[in-house]
Formats: sequence, structure tokens, C-alpha cells
Amino acid sequence: MIYSFKNDYSSIAHPLVLQKLMDCQNEQNVGYGLDEHSDNAKKYIKEKIKKDSDIHFLVGGTQANMVVISSILRPYEAVICCDSGHINVHETGAIEGQGHKCITVKGDNGKITTNDIKLVLSIHSDCHMVKPKMVYISNATEIGTIYSKKELIDLYNCCKDNNLYLFLDGARLASALAAGDIDYEDLGRYTDVFYIGGTKNGGYLGEAVVINNKAIANEFDYCVKHFGAMLAKGFVGAIPFEVLMKDDLYYQIGKKENECAQYLASELRLLGFKFMCDSVTNQIFPIVNKNMMEYLSKEFLFEVWEYRSDDEIVIRLVTSFTTRQYHCDQLLNYIKSGQ
Amino acid sequence: MIYSFKNDYSSIAHPLVLQKLMDCQNEQNVGYGLDEHSDNAKKYIKEKIKKDSDIHFLVGGTQANMVVISSILRPYEAVICCDSGHINVHETGAIEGQGHKCITVKGDNGKITTNDIKLVLSIHSDCHMVKPKMVYISNATEIGTIYSKKELIDLYNCCKDNNLYLFLDGARLASALAAGDIDYEDLGRYTDVFYIGGTKNGGYLGEAVVINNKAIANEFDYCVKHFGAMLAKGFVGAIPFEVLMKDDLYYQIGKKENECAQYLASELRLLGFKFMCDSVTNQIFPIVNKNMMEYLSKEFLFEVWEYRSDDEIVIRLVTSFTTRQYHCDQLLNYIKSGQ
Amino acid sequence: MIYSFKNDYSSIAHPLVLQKLMDCQNEQNVGYGLDEHSDNAKKYIKEKIKKDSDIHFLVGGTQANMVVISSILRPYEAVICCDSGHINVHETGAIEGQGHKCITVKGDNGKITTNDIKLVLSIHSDCHMVKPKMVYISNATEIGTIYSKKELIDLYNCCKDNNLYLFLDGARLASALAAGDIDYEDLGRYTDVFYIGGTKNGGYLGEAVVINNKAIANEFDYCVKHFGAMLAKGFVGAIPFEVLMKDDLYYQIGKKENECAQYLASELRLLGFKFMCDSVTNQIFPIVNKNMMEYLSKEFLFEVWEYRSDDEIVIRLVTSFTTRQYHCDQLLNYIKSGQ
Amino acid sequence: MIYSFKNDYSSIAHPLVLQKLMDCQNEQNVGYGLDEHSDNAKKYIKEKIKKDSDIHFLVGGTQANMVVISSILRPYEAVICCDSGHINVHETGAIEGQGHKCITVKGDNGKITTNDIKLVLSIHSDCHMVKPKMVYISNATEIGTIYSKKELIDLYNCCKDNNLYLFLDGARLASALAAGDIDYEDLGRYTDVFYIGGTKNGGYLGEAVVINNKAIANEFDYCVKHFGAMLAKGFVGAIPFEVLMKDDLYYQIGKKENECAQYLASELRLLGFKFMCDSVTNQIFPIVNKNMMEYLSKEFLFEVWEYRSDDEIVIRLVTSFTTRQYHCDQLLNYIKSGQ
Repeated sequence: MIYSFKNDYSSIAHPLVLQKLMDCQNEQNVGYGLDEHSDNAKKYIKEKIKKDSDIHFLVGGTQANMVVISSILRPYEAVICCDSGHINVHETGAIEGQGHKCITVKGDNGKITTNDIKLVLSIHSDCHMVKPKMVYISNATEIGTIYSKKELIDLYNCCKDNNLYLFLDGARLASALAAGDIDYEDLGRYTDVFYIGGTKNGGYLGEAVVINNKAIANEFDYCVKHFGAMLAKGFVGAIPFEVLMKDDLYYQIGKKENECAQYLASELRLLGFKFMCDSVTNQIFPIVNKNMMEYLSKEFLFEVWEYRSDDEIVIRLVTSFTTRQYHCDQLLNYIKSGQ
Repeated sequence: MIYSFKNDYSSIAHPLVLQKLMDCQNEQNVGYGLDEHSDNAKKYIKEKIKKDSDIHFLVGGTQANMVVISSILRPYEAVICCDSGHINVHETGAIEGQGHKCITVKGDNGKITTNDIKLVLSIHSDCHMVKPKMVYISNATEIGTIYSKKELIDLYNCCKDNNLYLFLDGARLASALAAGDIDYEDLGRYTDVFYIGGTKNGGYLGEAVVINNKAIANEFDYCVKHFGAMLAKGFVGAIPFEVLMKDDLYYQIGKKENECAQYLASELRLLGFKFMCDSVTNQIFPIVNKNMMEYLSKEFLFEVWEYRSDDEIVIRLVTSFTTRQYHCDQLLNYIKSGQ
Repeated sequence: MIYSFKNDYSSIAHPLVLQKLMDCQNEQNVGYGLDEHSDNAKKYIKEKIKKDSDIHFLVGGTQANMVVISSILRPYEAVICCDSGHINVHETGAIEGQGHKCITVKGDNGKITTNDIKLVLSIHSDCHMVKPKMVYISNATEIGTIYSKKELIDLYNCCKDNNLYLFLDGARLASALAAGDIDYEDLGRYTDVFYIGGTKNGGYLGEAVVINNKAIANEFDYCVKHFGAMLAKGFVGAIPFEVLMKDDLYYQIGKKENECAQYLASELRLLGFKFMCDSVTNQIFPIVNKNMMEYLSKEFLFEVWEYRSDDEIVIRLVTSFTTRQYHCDQLLNYIKSGQ
Repeated sequence: MIYSFKNDYSSIAHPLVLQKLMDCQNEQNVGYGLDEHSDNAKKYIKEKIKKDSDIHFLVGGTQANMVVISSILRPYEAVICCDSGHINVHETGAIEGQGHKCITVKGDNGKITTNDIKLVLSIHSDCHMVKPKMVYISNATEIGTIYSKKELIDLYNCCKDNNLYLFLDGARLASALAAGDIDYEDLGRYTDVFYIGGTKNGGYLGEAVVINNKAIANEFDYCVKHFGAMLAKGFVGAIPFEVLMKDDLYYQIGKKENECAQYLASELRLLGFKFMCDSVTNQIFPIVNKNMMEYLSKEFLFEVWEYRSDDEIVIRLVTSFTTRQYHCDQLLNYIKSGQ
């Protein structure tokens, strides 16, 4: 059977999450997120970030970005993001669809710098242009890089100095946490709002939006419903987080994913492969030639990231909570046989 | 333990749906609805409606209404609905949020008539008013009534004669199918688009949008993503329908729910209670006095629908796939003891 | 030549307004409303309302309603209006187009009462419904009635007690001011925002939006531009108000219009005609039979307001700044000849 | 008195336009663009473009862009424009405000090339990204350059080959027509929709939107009203075009503006000044040092376009229908005295 390194959302859910569903199947719960599973999941998250933030369980990443950004910005306000940012490229205009421009910056290694922000602010100076009001970052980024704690604090301070909100998209947060020096507490302290990605880290769905800044938490429930994002069975959206966040499972999933991905990367380096960038998380971007790409395609699934020439094709290999070292070894052995 | 007649979305999912999740937990699936579970669920639905319609699995009812209506209407076009319609009352302005007016009509017993439609059309005659372009109905309706096959055909013909789309919200479709003379095939034939509600009929989430009219199916996937409604794990949205629609399970759930609700209703009638309306589905609306309401609240959960006076309080009792006759008997016995 | 009583926007502008354009044709002005004409017009308005409000010159009524409402409300917030309200009926969904529901009330004689407001608030109690946040009234109303000062104060107090904004559409404000006991100062004191209609009271275009509540005036310029409502030649939008508001011209136009309309009404009453409602402003609604309607159509322009039967047709007669008593006498004499 | 080269919208209107207003002041016209002035203006435009296109008179450029783009695109569809394009930079997010992404390309000398378009299309290949559906160009561009007839035809053919609409923003069309080889007929033939700018070419306001492609003209009036852009006094919006388009006035205004600007440019070149780009229309962009900029500011109004260093400041000088050669000579003489 072909193993897929195509993405981290190909399997239903971590076994413990599924087991929880089975365990609770005879319950009757209150609707719309007012149930005990939601309460538990919120409690676990608050304990980890050490802050009494406002927490809401949404279904997916594009939805979370759309609801968060649209509920906070006024009609003429805009969000600053990397030109590679998910909201700018891969959400079919969901942010613009609710009325807001994405102001793009080049960024550095997939990340926004304080200089990027200052430049945008210097240009957007009057009412004939949109007003920048929020900075959107992803951790891990689209290319698997991560922000350091210092970088996060610098961004946050720059935002506060300039009356901007800092929003962190954590679709792949588990992997970022396990790879860097930012911890849960930092997320509570140095962002206005962020979310903990469930879909790509062991949940069957779900992103837990955490609003640290009370000024923007006001009546968020209305926004969730208004944008079609409220689950009647709120507990279905909360249970993955009840399981993932109770103890250390979320972090451990990220850690394992990273180990597999970095093992793959180091072995591929030994085999002579170059990489598009130095990812430290669960996505790696080796460069192969056309023959190797076609050879690989016979036994494995993966994504072609960028086609530069027949000799230089960037592919993306992603590990997930289901990836084990033997999957990596299968891939590596297969590549060795084909070299 | 208190039993809840509050709604039909208090339990996670039908045991067979959950079992399927467990059975498939080791799979790796393609993302975004291009997987086999989605294919299977679509196949089963097409077989039932005997039509090669376009099918998409969304998460919830408000989202389905929002995406369907917004993807079809041009900016100035409006949707006709009952003033009690879910889109008009209980979706926090999701339809208006995407730019479209709900033109309300009084309706008859929760249902829209062709006369309602004709009256709206006669009034909306020029470019200074919105242009009616779609009729939205729910089956079952908000108050548990259902459309007959003849009524559906009349509405559909009226729509076609007047260049309107007919959209049927099937959040409680299982119950409607089991209670009336409309079958799956009629839904494929006499609506432009409808959806099969999963959330309230045994799924852990999900509404299957079925677009019969190819003219409006065009690039619907773009709309799904644009409105934040696309699941990365599309298979998670499809599996409930794979199970519910494979054989007869969906219909059987509706049938059982109805039986329980109608049993409750007939027994309550014998006990002397009057009703707000003659529901034939899984929601019933008995009228109680204040004492009875408070007495009931001690042991059962239910919703107060309308407070007319201390002597006339309409409550709503809803049965679900978990309701058994003994739950009904418990309620009835408790009421008898309290009379 | 046929004289038109069809509306109050059939002639270009009051002669003094046109003269001002001619007088200023050799000037070079700053763009975007930062010019002296805008400054003057604002000064005159502030003097009249005795308040240092924020003032912006927009082009038309629908635009003013759209920009004001959309700049103030958050996505899920809604505006309460009469079911006959202009925003609800005759703006092709412009308010919904920017995302906001119009919650309609029956009203009394075209006017909203505090009871209407309280009822709406009692119903809209949770996040599953839109949140009422603004009350929209027109003075004069769509059917020519007006609010008394007491009614305005009651509405305003009710709004303040319930955390609602009060917005007064003054498309026909001149006529309302001249007919009732509300003066400019009251408008500054007892509304959060209102506008002074230019289009229907002697200007070639223009509505002067006056924001009394500083909390909602913030960055309104951004909204004006964002909704496509900012004039490069801001002075073209301001000049009508510079002329109309400098001395008493605006009020005098309303007074004359009313006198003509009320003269018509009283003479028609003497001739035996009944009316749809007791308008006191520049629109009157006599009831004619089919013969009279057809007879009138040969020599005069007017609008058919409501067709009840061949014996009861409500027509609308509107006077404007161009209407003189002899126009009215021509109409009256013609009617007498035809009776 | 200081003369302003700041922009081309500082004076009310061309004398002939104002005269027309005076001449018509005693008329009563039908509302909403169904009057004779609108008919005349449409007739003159159709004669010039030799096509029976759909024509609508809007108030300003941002509004025209917003209404045209939003009425044509479906929610997930996007418009391709130059990164310097007016819709991308200077409309406070009006296009995104109605839900549509601006996909930017670098362009060449302010202009989009067919290669730019093809590159965008090659990237936007699936439903996870917006769908490019329209190309937006300005003629003249933001930096005063113009498209040649060949370039226009190439763009149009590229659009047709790829199922895209071509939309030409003619805010400064008079100047572009007078400077290049594109004529009115080409605009009717090689665009799907364009507009004739009135505001910056002698009108007191107004942009005449011309829809050549009947497929997108459908129910445009509804859109105009829906977006708050319909004038009750439609004739006020049409009269400028009735005057400007009757004979050759519009073109002559552009010609004169260009002559003045190009006279200025050639004289400035003789005086040793360099330019940011080779504009051929009524906007020129000389580069001055800080001393010269400050010296000039004492007697003339102009815009600072880009501050590169104290030695290199790009300023913008704009001529308008009021500019005469002696204004230019005054400027030139003043500069000579200051060198």
C-alpha cells in the first residue's frame, strides 16, 4: 500500500480522540458550545496559557481566519500578512469576501518582520487607502519555518506601539511549539488572538480560537453564528481539544511529527538532496529531479510545491500523527534503490 | 437522570456512524472531499434521488443556507421565505451578512403558498426594490408541519413559471420524509437545490447539499471554500452520509422519531392538553400552564416556545434518534402524577 | 405643457444654488471636501444645530443610509425600521448588501413608537438572532407624516436606555421642519446621526450627514471612501448646503412646499376627495376613482401609490421648490372641470 | 494668487457645462436617468463608439469601479490589476469591501501585459485560490502613460482567449485619447466595459459607464441602486456628458491639457530636469531637489509623489481644462528665477 506524505490531514483522528467519541455516545449535551466538553476543553487551554481568555471552537482554518478577522476589523480596515500567507493565497478570497484587504509584505523566510510592518504603516497614511489594523502570522509558517520567542515579542510590541492587533494562525501550532522556544504561555501573553489547530494535529476537525485581548472578544458568539460557523453540536467541536489539551498529547503529536520529518530531512541531506528552505517542523521541501519525482510517485503520495525545471522540482513531504519511523525508512530505502 | 426533549442535536451520533469512524481510523484519505467516502455518500444519494446531481457536504444548517443562497444570487437578488423561516429568524443575519434580503411572507401553517409568491412578485416590479429570485422552504418546517407532494410540485411549477429557484432546507428532512408523501425522487425532481440534514438526524455534523439544477452548480466548490465552509478532512463530513444513506437508516431514524413524538402527542391529547399546531413530525408543541411547566422542568429538559400567559405556555418537545418509547412513558407518567 | 406633481426631484436646483456655481466657476479648490465651501456649509449647519458635530456631504439618500448604517454597525448588528421605511422597501437591498438586516415594525401612521422598539428588543435576546443596535426613522416619513418633538425625545430616550443609536433620515427634512415643532437644535440634541436632504429640497444633489455622537464619528471619512461615496470635487457636494443653510433658504423651501401641498389638500377635501392619511408636509395622498385618474393623467404627472379598486386609487401629489400656487390652481380647476 | 497644478479636479466645471445647467433650470425632468438629457448623452456616446452599448451615469471613479466590478464578478472571482492600479491602492478597499480580491501584477511602465495575465492564470488553477475573471486597466495610467491600440487589442484578445472580461478605467480618458492612437470606436470594440471620466475632464462630476458586452449588462440598474450609486436626479449626472460628448469638446479638453503638460515637460527638460517616467498625457513627474520643492511650494500647488532623498523628489504636475499656456509660463519663469 502506498503511504502518503501529502499532508497532515489524511487520517480521521488520533485514536484517543476517537475513543472519547465512543465513550460519550450515550450522553445528552446542551447545544451551541454550552456543554461540559466545551467547558473542559476551555479549562485545559486556560491552564496551559495561564490566562482567562475567551475561547471558541470553530471547524477549520479558513473559517477561523475569516471569522476572527471579520469580527474584529471595521469595513475599511485591513490585515497585514506575508505574500505567502494562507489568507492571501489559499483561501479563495475568504478575507476579501467579508470585505477586508490583505496588505502583503515580502517577509523573510516566510515570516513578517517589524520592518515590514513599519513600512506598511508609513505608506498607509490617509483615508484614501485602507487602514492597517491587524498583523496576521502563522506559526509554523507555510514553509515550515517558525518564529522565535524574541521575534514574537518584537512583533507584539511593534503592534502595540502602533495600535495593531496581532493574530497568530496556529493551524500547525503543535509542530511549532515542539520545534521552538515559544510556549503556550507566550501565546497568551504576546498575541491578541491565536488559534490552536486541531485538524492538522490529531483532531477530526476543529480550531480553538483563543482571544486574549478582551476588547475584541466582545460578542464574538454573534459573529460565529453570523458567519455560519456555529455548530449546533458544539461538543463535537470541543471534544478533540478536550482530549488533545488535557495532558500533553497535543505537544507530543507535534514533537513526533517533527522528529519524523527531521529524520527524513537529515537522511535526505546525507543522500545529497538540497532543500528549498530550512524547515524545522513537520513539513520539509527537498528538491528532486524529474526522474526521481516520477519514481517516487509510484509508491508514495506527496505534493509538488514548485516546478523550477526538470532538474529542480521542489516537493513537499509532510509527516502527521500517524507517521512512524518505518514509514520514513520505507521512503528512504525506496529512494536509495532508485538513485 | 433527567432526559432531554430539548432538541434533536444533543447526542454525538448514531452508533453506526460512530462505528464507521472507528473502522476507518487507520486509513489515509485524500483531502477536500475527493476521497472515497465522499464518493460513496454521493453515489448513495444519487441512487435515492435517481438523478446525477451535484453534491457537497457542509457542516451545519446556517452555513449551508448561507453558502447556497450566496453562491446563487447576484448582489441585488433576494430570497422569499416564511416570516418564521430559519434564515429570517435564527441565523443572526447570515443571509443579509452576505448581502441578500429575506423577503418574508406570512405563510400558512409554517408553509409558503404560491399565492404568497405571486403577491411578492407583483410588488417587486422595478430596480428600486430587490429582485426576488429564490424561494426558500423548510421541510419539515420550523413548527413541525410538512409540505405535501402536491404542494411541493405547485411551488416548483410556480417558481419555474416565474424564473425563481426553489431551495428546500432539509435540516429535519428525515422526519419530513417519514411523515409525508414526498420521497427522495421528488426532491431531485421538484427542487433546484435542497439539503439532507445530518446534524439533527444521526450524524455528528453535516448537511448534504444536493444541487439538481446544473445551471447553479457551476463552481460551487469555489463558493464553499470562499465562505470558509470547506473541510480539509472532507471525509469527516461525508462519513455520516455514507452510513445514513447507504441503506434505509436515514429514513428509519425519521420514522422512529416521528413515532415517539406522535405517541407523546396522542397521549397528551388524551390527558387534555391542547397544541399550538398540528405537527406530524418529531417536534410537538403542547400548551401547558405555569405550574405544569415548572413541575416538568424539575425532571425533563425542553424549550419554552411562546409565553402567552400563565395559563398558556407553548412548550416544544423534540424526539431524536436516541428517544425510545420508555423515555416518552417516563414523561407521560410524570405528567400524570403531577396533574 | 404638463406640470408634474410626480416628485420633488424633477428640477435641477434652486436658482440661488445654480447662481453660486456660476459665481465660483473660476476658482481652484482643494479636493475631497477640504475646501472652503465645505467649511462654510459645515459652519452654517453647526450654527443652526448649535453643536460641533461631524459633517459629511454625500450624494444621495440611499448612499447616505448605506454609508451611515454600515459604518456604525458591526456585522451581526441590525437596524430597526418601519416596514414602509425607505431602507426596507426602496433601496434595492443596499443595507442588506453591506451585511445588515432591517428589522421591521408595523409602526403607527408611518412612524415608529417606543413600544415597537421594546417589542423588538424583547424578542432579540441571544446570539442566534441579529442584535438590534440602531433605530432608523424618516422625518418627514414616507407617507408625509412627521414626528412631534415629544415623540422624538421619547424615541431618543428609549434608544439611550437600551444602548441603541437613533438615526434620522432627513431626505425631506425641510418640509418636516416647516410643518412641525422640531427645530435644528433638536436634531443635534435628540439624534445620534441625521442627514439634511439636499436633493429633494433645492440642491442639484447632496445629503449632509451630521454625526452628533462622537463615538460613531470616528474615521467616517474612511467609510465614505470605502463605500465609493467620496467626491473628488467635494465642493460640488457642499455648495448646495452653503447656499441652502446660510440663511433661512432651506426652511423657506420646505414652508412653501408645504403651503402648496396643504392648499391642494384642503381644496381637494372641499371637492369631496378623501385621503389615505393626514399628511402635513409636501406629499399628499388623495383617493380618486379610475375615471379621475385617467382624466388627470392627460394633463398632469403624478404617481399611483396604491390600487385598491377601480373606485379607490391612492395617488401621490408632491410639491417642490418650483411649485407655485397657480400650478395648484391649474390642477384644481382641471379637476373641477372633470368632476 | 497661487495657481494649482495639484490635480485636474479643482475647478467646478467647464463653462459650457455650467451654461447648460443654467439653460435647463426651469425644466421638470423624469427621475432616475429616464430623462432626455440622459437619452441625449447616451446617443452621443453611442455615435462615437459606433455601438449600441449599455450606458449608465455614475458619480465618481471609485464608485464606478466598485459598481462595475461587483456587479459582474461572482463572490470568489477576482480582478487582475497593476500593483499601482487605483483600485488596488487608492480606493480604501472599495473592491475588497464588496468581496473581491485584487490580484496584482508588476506591470510595465504602469501597464499590464499579456504575459502578466498568463502568469496569473497559470498560478490560479484550483478552487483553493480566487478565480481571475477580469482584467482592470486604466487609460491613461496612474503615471500618465497610455496603451497603444496594438496593446489594447492584444490584451482584449488575451482576455477573450481566457474567458476574462476587460475593464478600462477612463478617469483620464480624454487625455489618453488625445495622446495616443486609440479612438472611441476601439473602446467599444476592444473592451467589455469602460468608462468615460467626467470629473477630471470638465464635468462637475460623473463617469459614464459603457457596457459593450451585453452578457454583463443585464440588470445593471439594479446594481447601481443596490450599491447606493443611483441619482434621483439622473439628469444632473448626464448633463456633463450631454455637453462634453455632443461634439468634440471632451477630446479637445484632453488635447489642450496634454499640450500644456507636454509644453511644461519639454521646457523643464531644457532646464535640466529629469523625470520619473515618460508621461505623454496631462500628468508629468519631474524630479526636483529639496530646495526647489520648497521654493516652488511658495507660489504653486502640486503633489509630492515620491520622496527618494533630499536630492531626488518626484513631484506631480497636473494640467486641467482651466490650464492655459501663461500658467505654464508663470511656473517656468518662477523656476528659472529660482535656479
